Order: sequence, then structure tokens, then C-alpha cells
Amino acid sequence: MVDFAARRTHGTDAAQKLARSSYIAGFDGTSNVHAAATYGIPPRGTMAHSLISAFPDEADAFRAYARAFPDSSTFLVDTYDTLAGVRNAITIGLEMKQQGHALRAVRLDSGDLLELSRASRRLLDEAGLDAVEVFASGGLDEYSVDALVKAGAPIAGFGVGTRLGTSADAPHADFVYKLVVFQGQPVMKLSADKVNLPGSKQVHRHADRDGSFSGDVIGRETEPLPAAEPTEPQIEPLLGPVMRGGRKLRPDPEIGQVRTAFAEQFARLPSTLKELGTTHSYDVRVSDELRLLTEVTGQELRDRL
Amino acid sequence: MVDFAARRTHGTDAAQKLARSSYIAGFDGTSNVHAAATYGIPPRGTMAHSLISAFPDEADAFRAYARAFPDSSTFLVDTYDTLAGVRNAITIGLEMKQQGHALRAVRLDSGDLLELSRASRRLLDEAGLDAVEVFASGGLDEYSVDALVKAGAPIAGFGVGTRLGTSADAPHADFVYKLVVFQGQPVMKLSADKVNLPGSKQVHRHADRDGSFSGDVIGRETEPLPAAEPTEPQIEPLLGPVMRGGRKLRPDPEIGQVRTAFAEQFARLPSTLKELGTTHSYDVRVSDELRLLTEVTGQELRDRL
Repeated sequence: MVDFAARRTHGTDAAQKLARSSYIAGFDGTSNVHAAATYGIPPRGTMAHSLISAFPDEADAFRAYARAFPDSSTFLVDTYDTLAGVRNAITIGLEMKQQGHALRAVRLDSGDLLELSRASRRLLDEAGLDAVEVFASGGLDEYSVDALVKAGAPIAGFGVGTRLGTSADAPHADFVYKLVVFQGQPVMKLSADKVNLPGSKQVHRHADRDGSFSGDVIGRETEPLPAAEPTEPQIEPLLGPVMRGGRKLRPDPEIGQVRTAFAEQFARLPSTLKELGTTHSYDVRVSDELRLLTEVTGQELRDRL
Repeated sequence: MVDFAARRTHGTDAAQKLARSSYIAGFDGTSNVHAAATYGIPPRGTMAHSLISAFPDEADAFRAYARAFPDSSTFLVDTYDTLAGVRNAITIGLEMKQQGHALRAVRLDSGDLLELSRASRRLLDEAGLDAVEVFASGGLDEYSVDALVKAGAPIAGFGVGTRLGTSADAPHADFVYKLVVFQGQPVMKLSADKVNLPGSKQVHRHADRDGSFSGDVIGRETEPLPAAEPTEPQIEPLLGPVMRGGRKLRPDPEIGQVRTAFAEQFARLPSTLKELGTTHSYDVRVSDELRLLTEVTGQELRDRL
């Protein structure tokens, strides 16, 4: 999976952050070379249609590109006709082979990706270019990638742009900063439909015997860790201080560490939560102590009105 | 209308650009003080709920704020109970009046904005604070603002955030850069469903006798301006060079000029296109010459495959 979203994100800052977060979430690289350099992410990309258009002949464009990237070229084959493009790629791929180099992949960017990937794979295999991969892009999202994978499309990698950089099904996240403690006292707001939980918190994440997360309990920071039960032997607090006296308590972790930590945590999420198209939810509860504090603080505020 | 979107935009760059573009489109200001300073936009904002929460008493918070902004305060009144908040605002507003200052507005941020704006207006008027405005925010979009205005809500201004900074109904715009001319020759791509128009272009905008825009014709750059007709006496070309030899041909216009130009152009759009909830479309055609060039260029490319 490669992040192709830079041209669709809401500005340059979003493009940078998206490259970083998609890499943390498991993507293999980004076509945003500035983000790659900034965060230490593998740069991955192919070529633009404009490069092909700038040559009188598609094969000449591939040949020129191969001179610049003799061992890491991916040829974009759909500028004029996808399978004719694959045949041009094969011609240049065989020239590269003769010169001791190797074409990495061809990239499909339009049309019926399942059918075209099968036809492209067949042409490449028949030409003895078994190691040249088929890469796909073009309006993909999690559903279309899933459908292609399930259909057994011979596609080795996907580039995802628009639907990674902007979210059509969840265009915004309604989270906010609220003051919960001031000078040691729990505070809260009582606005209609916007009541928040007062006081500083701790979140206890429960896991079952095989390590799979079973639910979180949001409680007061001062609450003792709940007793482990045979069915939920693992409970760990999630929150800890990151700054004190205006200073960070530790250096930022390397992006590779963050990525590994994400993979470990993600593996422990119940698989039902990772299915596409289903609506299972994760159990998040508020502790009795925190519920009581919320009632008492709210009542005190109402009494003062 | 005030831009409140900075906390919802996709990163800082988007927040800056949004403040600028919403101001150009007719907003009166932004709560993003960095954007205000960068682009010369009037900074407009109120206070956070956290300011209120940081005081033992809401009236104390208002009083402290009034000391800092004696003539430009807007009090956020919904932290605990909106109408109790308005009564506190009236108390402090009358104190400010005695001291020769003036409260600018109260801000509603939750609940039934129509009903609360009427009740707030009544309380303010009864207290002799007729000049104190009612300002509203909280999950607003073009439809809810329109409904409040049509219902005659006594609201003098609106702050819009989430649905201005992220677009739920149109989360992305599928426009792309394509090479259309290279070394003087028109070029194009033929990819399935992604064919583009070759050659450099001019767009002619037609207007009817009252100056209202009636449609655009996309043609070749070299095409002569179409002859004006009695029903469409005004035709103007929209495209012109902005850079030459790597240099901008003129300095960027002031944001105020851009805003005025937008207002003038927007006024000339047919009113049906500005109605909410309707789906009229604007007439955009491709000229015969450009259509011919597209056919010829495409055929030449296909002949070479």
C-alpha cells in the first residue's frame, strides 16, 4: 500500500501528516517525497501521465525513465491503451533485462482493474517477466481493494489517494479540548447535549486470556486499578504524563517504533472490529466513581445558578 | 459570518487557506488569529468554555473578560445554562455600561438556537441592552443558518466551524493537472473515462443583457472571440498569462480586491445557482474547434498504438 494522496489533501500540512500516519498504520511508503525525507518514510512512486505525454512515443518515455531508474522503475501503462502500454513495458523491460537491470512493475490506473491485472500478468509471464509486478491505482478505497484481493487479482501493490487523503464516509471527527480540572478542582460544562466528564482521568484497557482487547473503562485518575478476573487477566492503564514543567519527559519515539507499536496494538483488537462493512463496537464504560463525580460536580454547579 | 473552523481543518495549512478563502467569499472575519495576521483579515472570536470553567463563577469570568476587552466582548453563555448565562451577561453588561463601555454580544453555542435567540433578545431588550447582539454557533451549516434566518431568529451573526472546514457533502474535488501541450504540439491521454481535452485553451464567458452570466464556452486559445448576439451582448475571455520566463507578471492583488472581485462576479451568477437544495447547473460547452482538435489528436495517438 502506498500513499498517493498529496494532491488531494487539504493543503501541505495535511499531506505531510497523512504520509506519516498512513505509514504508522502499515502503509509501505509514500509518493510525497518531502514527507518521506521529513519523517524517514520510504519514498515510493511511479510516473505522471504528463511524462508519457511529453514524449512522441510511449516506449520512448519508458526507455528514458528506465535510464534514470534502472532498477526501480514502475511504468504507468494506461495513458493511451492499457494492454498496448503493457506490451511497450515488456519491450523496454526485456531491454533492461539484457542490460542486467530489472523493471520493477507496471501500473494500471484506470479501467477494470481485475480484468486488466489478469491480462497484464499473463502478458508479462508469457514474456518471461515473471518478477515484474502489477501495481494498481485510480479511485481506490478499502472496499475496492478488498474486492480485488478477494477476487484473487494478481496485483502486488495499491496506490491510494483521494479516499485516503479525504474521508467521504467520516469527513470530520467531533472531538474537542475541554478543561476538566482547574486549581485542583474538577470542572465541567453543562451545555445541552455537550456535558463532559469532569476531573483528571485514567483509562484501563482490559484484555482477555489470549491478549485480545475486550474493553476500556474510563475512570478517575486516582481510582485503583480494577481487580483482574480470570476471563480478563490483563488490565493496563493507557494514560501517562508526557510533559511536566513545560518540558517533554522523553524524546519522541522513532517512526519505526511507533509503527511497530501500532501493529502490535492493532493485532490485539478483536477481529470483528477490523471487518469492513460491519458495525461492531468496542466496549467503553465509565467507572462508578467517575459517574458519581460527574453527578456531584454537575449538581454543585446547578445549585450555584 | 465568522470562520470558526481552525480546530476542525486538516492541519494548520488548511486552516490558513480556509480563513483566507472564506473571507474572500464574504465572511466577515476569522477566529484564527494567525490567519488574520497573515492575510489581513479581521480577527473575530469570543471565548472558550474553558475560560468560564476556570472561574468559580460564570459572572466572574465575564467580568474578567470585560476588563481585557471593554468594548469588544462577546460572552459565551451556554456553559451551564443558556438563559442563566444571559442574565449573568446582562449583569456585567450593565456594569460595563455604567463604566462607559459596551458589551458587544452574547453567544449561544448549543440547544434550540431559534427559541434561545428569541428569549435572549427579549431579556437583553428588557434590560435596556438593545445594542448587545445575539451571536450563534454550534454545528451550523448553510442549511441551518438559512432556516434560522428564514424563521426570523434575532441572530446578528453566526460562527461556523466543522462544516466549513471539512465538507461532508463534497469531501473532495477530483481535479487534476494534465499536460495539454508539449513543444508546441497538443497532447492528451486516452485512459478509460479519463480522456482530457488537448491544446491550450481559452474560456469565453457569456453574459446576457443585464450582465448575468449565461454560460461558458471552452475553446482553443487561438479561436477568435465568438460574435456577440443581441441576447448575449457581453462575452469576455477568462484566461490570461500569470507567469512568463519563470516570473510573475504582476504582484498579487490585495485580499480586499480579491474579495470585491468575488462579490462582483458572484452577483452576476444566475440566482437559481445560488439557491440551497436545488440542482440547477451552469451551461459549459466545448467549442467545435476544440472538439475537432480532440478527435484529430486522439485519432493520431490511436493510429500510432
